[in-house]
Amino acid sequence: MKVLRIGATGTIGSAIMQSIGVRHEVVQVSRSKTDIRVDLSDKLSITNMFKSAGRVDAVICAAGLAVFGPLLNLSDDDFALGIGNKLMGQVNVVRVGVDYLKDSGSFTLTSGILSRKPTQGSVAISLVNSGLEGFCRAAALEMPRGIRINVVSPNWVIDTLKAFKMDPSIGTPVEAVAHVYVEALEGGMTGQVLDAIR
Amino acid sequence: MKVLRIGATGTIGSAIMQSIGVRHEVVQVSRSKTDIRVDLSDKLSITNMFKSAGRVDAVICAAGLAVFGPLLNLSDDDFALGIGNKLMGQVNVVRVGVDYLKDSGSFTLTSGILSRKPTQGSVAISLVNSGLEGFCRAAALEMPRGIRINVVSPNWVIDTLKAFKMDPSIGTPVEAVAHVYVEALEGGMTGQVLDAIR
Repeated sequence: MKVLRIGATGTIGSAIMQSIGVRHEVVQVSRSKTDIRVDLSDKLSITNMFKSAGRVDAVICAAGLAVFGPLLNLSDDDFALGIGNKLMGQVNVVRVGVDYLKDSGSFTLTSGILSRKPTQGSVAISLVNSGLEGFCRAAALEMPRGIRINVVSPNWVIDTLKAFKMDPSIGTPVEAVAHVYVEALEGGMTGQVLDAIR
Repeated sequence: MKVLRIGATGTIGSAIMQSIGVRHEVVQVSRSKTDIRVDLSDKLSITNMFKSAGRVDAVICAAGLAVFGPLLNLSDDDFALGIGNKLMGQVNVVRVGVDYLKDSGSFTLTSGILSRKPTQGSVAISLVNSGLEGFCRAAALEMPRGIRINVVSPNWVIDTLKAFKMDPSIGTPVEAVAHVYVEALEGGMTGQVLDAIR
């Protein structure tokens, strides 16, 4: 398969590449470090990304910005960033990308455990992640030509917890998270929220 | 209790009034038909609403616009309306209103069954409703002074189904939906998505 992988340079994105790079053709996209680049906040940038990549069998998006911070300190712009980038950015990848996907292709998006297991400071991210999950469940009912759409909801990755000096014992190895993306890519499910927890 | 009720003139809002009007002081707010009015898309309008209403024990919001329509026909503006009005409008009611709520007060917001039981054409509404549910779960962790926050997720109301010439047998009587808002108002739960299904 020809797979467009958005978020090529992130922790999860890199691990996905380890898993799928050996048996699929992967077109790598990131904000700034790949030949094809994308700004998820900008629908035109998303359109240009697909024009550059051409027709693909699958899109995996493990990218998107949202702001972590206390509810009563978050600004209007903090909410707008998550909604415009991680949420509507991924929604627009689907809206634009559906015309570039081959029959029976697939979209795999990324939400996160904070959708259903929030923490203090996660409110803008929890909103965005939950919104993505609702979008995915609904969008699956309307995908044309056998196209599938799923969203992976990763637990905290152990390496991320270590980077934030948080307890790594609650985390999931990045390889286990990446494996769920591979299942979404190569499996037959649609409209699912796929927890990547252990 | 002094209860600010946003969405005074809607089907559900009117039924809530029947249930709580007898034993609470209700300040009624709607878009255009009450003394105090609010445009949920406009944060300044929300601030002015609270300034007019003064301090309250509780806010019930059964209001908010979002667009029903096929995914591939929805415009950028269609998504923006639901996000700016039903989703961020209710989020902003909380962000602004927390300073107007008395200790141990409560917010009761409204999502809807399409968050977890989508239909064809519900994608923008499903996104908004799910996002609200994620927001509510997270925001409950950060509410000061014992303030509670819950979101009611109503099933299709029988009267609404009849108005849309849909099968009313899958619906819920509006009185049963209103009762769930009363439970949220008078109960002790927080951070909950309260299904109003039967």
